[in-house]
Amino acid sequence: MKKSILSGMRPTGKLHLGNYFGALQNWVLLQNEGYDCHFFVADWHAITTKHDETGGIRENSIAMVKDWLAAGLDPDKSTIFVQSLVKQHAELFTILAMITPVGWLERCPTYKEQKEQLGESKTANYGFLGYPVLQAADILMYDPDFVPVGEDQLPHLEITREIARRFNFLYGETFKEPQAKLTEVPKLPGTDGRKMSKSYGNVIDLCEGSDELWQKTRMMVTDPARVRKTDPGDPKLCSVFDFHKLFSPQEQRDEVCAGCTGATIGCMDCKKMLFANLDSFIAPMRERRAAISDQAALDIMHQGSLRAAAVAEAHMKRVRSHMSLEI
Amino acid sequence: MKKSILSGMRPTGKLHLGNYFGALQNWVLLQNEGYDCHFFVADWHAITTKHDETGGIRENSIAMVKDWLAAGLDPDKSTIFVQSLVKQHAELFTILAMITPVGWLERCPTYKEQKEQLGESKTANYGFLGYPVLQAADILMYDPDFVPVGEDQLPHLEITREIARRFNFLYGETFKEPQAKLTEVPKLPGTDGRKMSKSYGNVIDLCEGSDELWQKTRMMVTDPARVRKTDPGDPKLCSVFDFHKLFSPQEQRDEVCAGCTGATIGCMDCKKMLFANLDSFIAPMRERRAAISDQAALDIMHQGSLRAAAVAEAHMKRVRSHMSLEI
Ligand code: SF4
Ligand code: SF4
Repeated sequence: MKKSILSGMRPTGKLHLGNYFGALQNWVLLQNEGYDCHFFVADWHAITTKHDETGGIRENSIAMVKDWLAAGLDPDKSTIFVQSLVKQHAELFTILAMITPVGWLERCPTYKEQKEQLGESKTANYGFLGYPVLQAADILMYDPDFVPVGEDQLPHLEITREIARRFNFLYGETFKEPQAKLTEVPKLPGTDGRKMSKSYGNVIDLCEGSDELWQKTRMMVTDPARVRKTDPGDPKLCSVFDFHKLFSPQEQRDEVCAGCTGATIGCMDCKKMLFANLDSFIAPMRERRAAISDQAALDIMHQGSLRAAAVAEAHMKRVRSHMSLEI
Repeated sequence: MKKSILSGMRPTGKLHLGNYFGALQNWVLLQNEGYDCHFFVADWHAITTKHDETGGIRENSIAMVKDWLAAGLDPDKSTIFVQSLVKQHAELFTILAMITPVGWLERCPTYKEQKEQLGESKTANYGFLGYPVLQAADILMYDPDFVPVGEDQLPHLEITREIARRFNFLYGETFKEPQAKLTEVPKLPGTDGRKMSKSYGNVIDLCEGSDELWQKTRMMVTDPARVRKTDPGDPKLCSVFDFHKLFSPQEQRDEVCAGCTGATIGCMDCKKMLFANLDSFIAPMRERRAAISDQAALDIMHQGSLRAAAVAEAHMKRVRSHMSLEI
């Protein structure tokens, strides 16, 4: 039987290259390696920390799914769905809430971290505390073999596994304990050298338009020691070179490296080379994305959600039956 | 428009007279006064403190609903439904969780009380902490004008009202703030003089069989000072007399009172009189109950749940739309 994969993203709108290399690229790979994949828009999760700004959820979900499709997710191969359209997630959340000790949640390292980062007003809610329970419901619903995660999400997945074990212990074997599939994330800073993040305004969109792409590339920060072309630079201190490492062939990278340290090429030339490579990387996705209407994306989300709901309902029948919650 | 009422009970199985006078009698009255009533089996709530003993939920739900019907609830007048069959309750729970501060729940007096009474192992779970959120979802789903409650449940209803206010503030007017309708509960001790409660083994079932009823009445504790018929007794210190006050006409009560204090009737005579009155009170309910098959009760629960789900779904459409959670 095909091994299965589940993963989701909060609806943040258009994705940027950081999102692509952090997760989406890997999703496409897994899909194309033949895994049975479920990918979902985690719109209920978006409310946990943004209950006061739900206005954009619909638009952001559509924009994000268009990027998924542009990047190569294929609705014929993968089930692409929306969490809030598969009500079974809420049912399983409600049920798993009854068997999850509050202590497990309070001790979760990301809980404390996020409380400090986001502040009390965004993290004081019961739903935020229960975030890992909702996540466990999302995952266990589809009995995946693997969940692609970054290092930082390992504690969450561990709670999912503990909840699965506890449920199985109480009500008999019901859930598989999903394994982590660690995603290797290459270094890709934002245009200002900090972590690429919407909140810093330093992102390059996955399907960035050609003109904007050049403007952003042109403005990228470089090795600060290199003021004039005659000043030698150090590519290791330059975020443009981090991009070259991902988007330019070895030959060009060597050329840039020699030209930079030897002060024989200007930063603008270096950026023009990067732009050309970046633009040819983005172009096919940009074209695919332009061909997808909002309605087409919505249709895919709706159809995928029906498929997901059928899988979820079949699994919930087992859950209810094992708990004798069948009336 | 008809004023509306919502109330629920955990599926505890057969009801006893304490349950009847504590809530059910009042439900029947409200129904017959023409309120638009929703009454539900709170089976998800049953897991909050009994996640390790879900086995009996189905049987207990059926047994309880048969008692509801025996007591006079009429599925043509009231919507009788099962919480876990109306998945929208879980959806609204999930959503309200995102806007309810953990502090409101921790400060709830019944939370602390129950933690002490039931012990850590039954109250450590996330779902137990969130009990008032699930209850708020149950209630707000049907926009009732009134919720019949005992004094002790007022803090829970206050959290429901606060959650409604908070939702309305964040997303615009959506929920009515339900009013408490205080239920007056007459004093009715168990057969041993303590609070009537299954865990004490001192209950009289609502539809107790005639023979068992006599056995239980015969064994009821009386004024301990009255050992022989010639010892005068004090009805105020006798639980049999608490029963007379509810089930016997004034005339007989006076007779018992005089005979007891004057030592002219024996306790067994007194109990026989009580038994006759109790039995004629119970007999019609017992007959109605005997006429209801498990399947008939199940059909009523299923049909009522479909009706409730239609009301709930219409309301959830508004909730989702006000939150822009429509995809
Ligand atoms: S030449 Fe290229 S790698 Fe060197 S500092 Fe300029 S932009 Fe950076
Ligand atoms: S006569 Fe009746 S009221 Fe008096 S002590 Fe006996 S049982 Fe109680």
